[in-house]
Amino acid sequence: MSKERLYLFDTTLRDGAQTSGVDFSVNEKIVVAELLERLGVDYIEGGYPGANPTDTEFFSRKRTEKAVFTAFGMTKRAGRSAANDPGLQDILSSSSDACCFVAKAWDYHVRVALGCSNEENLDSIADTVSAAVAAGKEAMIDCEHFFDGYKANPDYALGCVRAAYQAGARWVVLCDTNGGTLPDEIFDIVTKVQDVVPGSHLGIHTHDDTSHAVANSLAAVDAGVRQIQGTLNGLGERCGNANLITLIPTLKLKAAFADRFETGVSDDQLKEITSISHAFDEVLNRSPARQAPYVGETAFATKAGIHASAILKDPQTYEHVTPESVGNQRRVLVSDQAGKSNLIGELARVGIKVDKADPRLDRLLAKVKDREAEGYAYEAADASFELLARKVLGDVPRFFEVNSFRVMVERRFNAIGDLLTVSEAVVKVDIDGETRMSVAEGNGPVNALDMALRKDLGKYQSAIEGLELIDYKVRILNGGTGAVTRVLIESQDTKTHRRWFTIGVSSNIVDASFQALVDSITFALLKANPA
Amino acid sequence: MSKERLYLFDTTLRDGAQTSGVDFSVNEKIVVAELLERLGVDYIEGGYPGANPTDTEFFSRKRTEKAVFTAFGMTKRAGRSAANDPGLQDILSSSSDACCFVAKAWDYHVRVALGCSNEENLDSIADTVSAAVAAGKEAMIDCEHFFDGYKANPDYALGCVRAAYQAGARWVVLCDTNGGTLPDEIFDIVTKVQDVVPGSHLGIHTHDDTSHAVANSLAAVDAGVRQIQGTLNGLGERCGNANLITLIPTLKLKAAFADRFETGVSDDQLKEITSISHAFDEVLNRSPARQAPYVGETAFATKAGIHASAILKDPQTYEHVTPESVGNQRRVLVSDQAGKSNLIGELARVGIKVDKADPRLDRLLAKVKDREAEGYAYEAADASFELLARKVLGDVPRFFEVNSFRVMVERRFNAIGDLLTVSEAVVKVDIDGETRMSVAEGNGPVNALDMALRKDLGKYQSAIEGLELIDYKVRILNGGTGAVTRVLIESQDTKTHRRWFTIGVSSNIVDASFQALVDSITFALLKANPA
Repeated sequence: MSKERLYLFDTTLRDGAQTSGVDFSVNEKIVVAELLERLGVDYIEGGYPGANPTDTEFFSRKRTEKAVFTAFGMTKRAGRSAANDPGLQDILSSSSDACCFVAKAWDYHVRVALGCSNEENLDSIADTVSAAVAAGKEAMIDCEHFFDGYKANPDYALGCVRAAYQAGARWVVLCDTNGGTLPDEIFDIVTKVQDVVPGSHLGIHTHDDTSHAVANSLAAVDAGVRQIQGTLNGLGERCGNANLITLIPTLKLKAAFADRFETGVSDDQLKEITSISHAFDEVLNRSPARQAPYVGETAFATKAGIHASAILKDPQTYEHVTPESVGNQRRVLVSDQAGKSNLIGELARVGIKVDKADPRLDRLLAKVKDREAEGYAYEAADASFELLARKVLGDVPRFFEVNSFRVMVERRFNAIGDLLTVSEAVVKVDIDGETRMSVAEGNGPVNALDMALRKDLGKYQSAIEGLELIDYKVRILNGGTGAVTRVLIESQDTKTHRRWFTIGVSSNIVDASFQALVDSITFALLKANPA
Repeated sequence: MSKERLYLFDTTLRDGAQTSGVDFSVNEKIVVAELLERLGVDYIEGGYPGANPTDTEFFSRKRTEKAVFTAFGMTKRAGRSAANDPGLQDILSSSSDACCFVAKAWDYHVRVALGCSNEENLDSIADTVSAAVAAGKEAMIDCEHFFDGYKANPDYALGCVRAAYQAGARWVVLCDTNGGTLPDEIFDIVTKVQDVVPGSHLGIHTHDDTSHAVANSLAAVDAGVRQIQGTLNGLGERCGNANLITLIPTLKLKAAFADRFETGVSDDQLKEITSISHAFDEVLNRSPARQAPYVGETAFATKAGIHASAILKDPQTYEHVTPESVGNQRRVLVSDQAGKSNLIGELARVGIKVDKADPRLDRLLAKVKDREAEGYAYEAADASFELLARKVLGDVPRFFEVNSFRVMVERRFNAIGDLLTVSEAVVKVDIDGETRMSVAEGNGPVNALDMALRKDLGKYQSAIEGLELIDYKVRILNGGTGAVTRVLIESQDTKTHRRWFTIGVSSNIVDASFQALVDSITFALLKANPA
């Protein structure tokens, strides 16, 4: 029996980005797009070009290789042509492959929000889609508040859907914008929509206001839609969007769906989903949700005490899917066997080949476990992991040694009575047996330390010329100022465009930052001077 | 049309309590039972008397007034009579009104976990129920792994259900113990179960491993069950149990259920659900889930900018239920008009009454907007907000003034060759025209500064004796070490148990921390010295 294709549409960078407190820089959008490509989604909605400088810049270039790069926008204003709508033109002239326009599908909103007639709204939908198609884009329409609009005036809501489809939209997406619709209603209404548009051209976009975002998405698929919109980790305003991290494993591992449908996510990509989910939390600088389905730290944590050991040997009797299928771990006891093969995989990922029987592997595994118990998260810091591995395996040259540093932050009045805060750092570094001492100021203690460390590295100075710190994240583990601080730094070599992440952990934030900075510089030198 | 009665069964203190890291004392169980009575659930499963001292003591007395006080346990062991099973006798002799016994309903588990025959298991179920009924208890059976058991051997699973019912069980609860069943399967299987037991005697117990705990519970109700088991805030192991805080508003506010069913929760009790949910988080010492359906801080937070003001006046057009119905608030950010009335609302919340026409309101509104543009988030820092408001409105006494501070972090080798990092802070504070200078060390720059600031505040020292910093969060806005740092501090007065949040923003992390620390101390002094 041949399977039907289900398309996954990610809107983390658009709908997810509307969450208050979330503010992706262009850099962060690039990192997230890379995560999404790694996951295997079909569409990446990157934002709203023309609406703000970040999105405009993000869309100045195509940012995806496999996924369809999608721009969001609104249908053209009533009373003007598509050609004369600058907002629409911004979207059409962007580097997107596809465009997704939000349209009113509830007559009340048309009257009160748009202030135009129902007919004019239908024209706006059709003209927008036509303009997008003419511009060579794949066109889609998000029907806002669709289910409430359908309940209020089913003929009009269907009219909007029809107008989009007949104008050439590849997808018409039915949005449960306020998140209040229940699965049976979704199923019934989606069934009716297929009187005017085939399920092959229908999408579903849900929210979690009653905890039904995932259930509603799947009910819509059961009824016939073939595109699901969602976000990483369910990011989104109010109660969040449909969580693709929950949907994808369910679609691939539950027979009810896996027997009927195929997505663009391979089984190998599914194994990366835990890692991708956690990497996205790092971008957001949030602690991962410990109890998240499939990928959460406790998702497969069984109280072994309540199972007979015979059952323990057959996890199928108490687990609904295997943790390995989603790249997670069963936490009953972590056998050394499982830990080691994980490690070999991680080493291969950073280009280090080690034999399974190599005794240094046990040492490295023990070191990684100790460090992670202290708060290091190597999943998020490839470069620090590679340095640690190479140190244990014995092949990182000692480029430089920091003997000591001193960082000072002082707040005082200057000579003319202004209150100012100054930060100064002094470092003493040994290179080739020679001690160099540098001082620098900065706009904070970590910035000052960074400047001082990089100021004079003798013969290595040219190797770090292009080194730039592009992101800096701090997380306090265990609360209170007596707690442990984890610092994650993202660096870039502006010459090679290589990027890497390093990590530091300490009860002292300056110390944690120092570790991450030193790792970053060491990594830059390692890559510039291959052994 | 008369409505059917739906019964709500809370297992926070039993299944929820099995969550690793959760450990309720007897006192805490009493507090939670009071919250549950306030909510209006029908059954409170308090624990497992005889299994551990806490539960035994909790069941030494009846702890509920309206709800049915329920004890959990296991069906009697095969090979001995009910009278000779001490575990069973512990439960029957407890102060419970009802007993809920977990039973195997999957033949594989019967064989491997219990090591008895299928027949013996059926006898255990029947004998246990009979014994409970004979002891004057309302008896119920939790059929463990029911849905997987049914899929493996439907006749046997139904046999277990039948045995319980025929022996006199008031409820037979079908448990999706591993959380892997989907709503359609739940519906179909529950429908079949009603060949042997009427829906009036069936219950459902779900888990959130695929994000379907709520949807599965409601699917079972649609199929005919009349008891729903869940926990407060979805507490439970792995991915959690069905969340009663989400289920109850859905059952009462969505026509699909409200038109057909009645629960034991009144409309007034529903209005308390946000407060009850947050109070339970306090017992757990967890931050409330900001995005929780219905009760979360952001559950009704709308970006009003995307709605025309006309729509704003009719929240039904963008909200699925009213926040007031669940005791929550609408948070709209926005136009000056809305901004000012929001502000008056926020001021009232911190106990400050201001007239709508007061010109100082405009000044405060402008200041709040400026600060928020810089990175302050007063939504998360009530105490800083109150201090700012009182400053603008002119009634915060100047308790102390920090003239200057100096913080130093130094990493160096000590006399015996160990590498260590020391942090030291010096502050100069003016109190009552007198300058006091203090120095302190800490395990990081912020800890050192905190200690130094609180070391000597002269006549105010006793007012800050109970002051404790309990959480410290850092966020970098805009990336890189040249970016803006936001620090959020949670403080507590160990004497009054009052908690408050303060915030600081600066490009310098020490400076940002300093602001939040000073606000925290000032707030403590304000509350100790009411004007």
